[in-house]
Amino acid sequence: MKKISESTIRRLSKYYRSLEQLIERNTDTVSSDQLAEMDGITSAQVRKDLSFFGTFGKRGLGYNTKALKEQLGEILGLDKRWRVAIVGAGNIGRALVNYGEFKKQGFNVCLIMDSDHSKVGEKILDLEVKSTDDLSELVQAENIDIAIIAIPSDAAQRVSDELMDAGIRAILNFAPISIKSRPNVMVKNENTAIEIEALSYFLSKR
Amino acid sequence: MKKISESTIRRLSKYYRSLEQLIERNTDTVSSDQLAEMDGITSAQVRKDLSFFGTFGKRGLGYNTKALKEQLGEILGLDKRWRVAIVGAGNIGRALVNYGEFKKQGFNVCLIMDSDHSKVGEKILDLEVKSTDDLSELVQAENIDIAIIAIPSDAAQRVSDELMDAGIRAILNFAPISIKSRPNVMVKNENTAIEIEALSYFLSKR
Repeated sequence: MKKISESTIRRLSKYYRSLEQLIERNTDTVSSDQLAEMDGITSAQVRKDLSFFGTFGKRGLGYNTKALKEQLGEILGLDKRWRVAIVGAGNIGRALVNYGEFKKQGFNVCLIMDSDHSKVGEKILDLEVKSTDDLSELVQAENIDIAIIAIPSDAAQRVSDELMDAGIRAILNFAPISIKSRPNVMVKNENTAIEIEALSYFLSKR
Repeated sequence: MKKISESTIRRLSKYYRSLEQLIERNTDTVSSDQLAEMDGITSAQVRKDLSFFGTFGKRGLGYNTKALKEQLGEILGLDKRWRVAIVGAGNIGRALVNYGEFKKQGFNVCLIMDSDHSKVGEKILDLEVKSTDDLSELVQAENIDIAIIAIPSDAAQRVSDELMDAGIRAILNFAPISIKSRPNVMVKNENTAIEIEALSYFLSKR
């Protein structure tokens, strides 16, 4: 399979959401023009993105919404259940345990840990906060696929290294530093400052 | 000025951060190859992105880190102070009030509102939670530039409309729905599910 850019994957996720909305509204088919308009891009981009993964839809007839959603879901791995651990039981960690979208898309948060012993044992929804002292054992016992870093910057690299040592190959990082990754590990940095900077660019250039 | 894509702006924000790191390490110059490596892209992409905004650096000598950081900061509007309001005093709203990166980059959270009257009057850091009943007056009195939506999906569009009615032209939306924007308004949707889906794609394709 060709190397697919992160931007393409991001757009596939957006198409997936647009298709969900269309299906909710009982819309059976959609053109690349309509998908493009929903996502604020060109229809040529939509067709190009989808062409990476084979032929979808019929010329002039558009795409079948349910079939396309299912195919995109398979490409994105949303047909699987993923076991997710959160490191950090602060505001971000709590928000993520409560984040309904994760469960809906097959991301099952089954472990939350914190280094602060006063938080250990506390319940967030039906999850008990565990100690990061036992990180490696917990991650392995719970068969974690994806770890989320929701702790301050100064500890983020050390904890990521521990996670990778424990066999984790996918990390979503909320700490505002770039985590050094390893071969065969993917780290996504979630940086809200970057999103808000697009707004500041927009407001400045006028 | 040419139309700059969102992906370009996103990469400029990343270069800005890489330059900050280099300056912290007392590095005076950087090549496009080095910047590319720090951000996991090609040096041709780096040169192309920077070329949109004029000529930076000298062939063979690389870029002066401080000068380039300053120029990127100006492009991104980070040389200004922006007044930010948060709607929603739940976990995400609280996390954002506490998010040091915002203040560091010139985003000053000066208003937080909630529709839940039991939260109104509560203090988060030095901010008192206000009622969304007074949204329009508060947004105008505080001269808000950017609003952040940190409330459940079902109220997100209505509140966004109220914000746009009150003159807000930049919205960062954390609710997992696409907000319908208006001409001359920019809405950025921050969707953590999209980030984690890139990881699920990565784990599935192996």
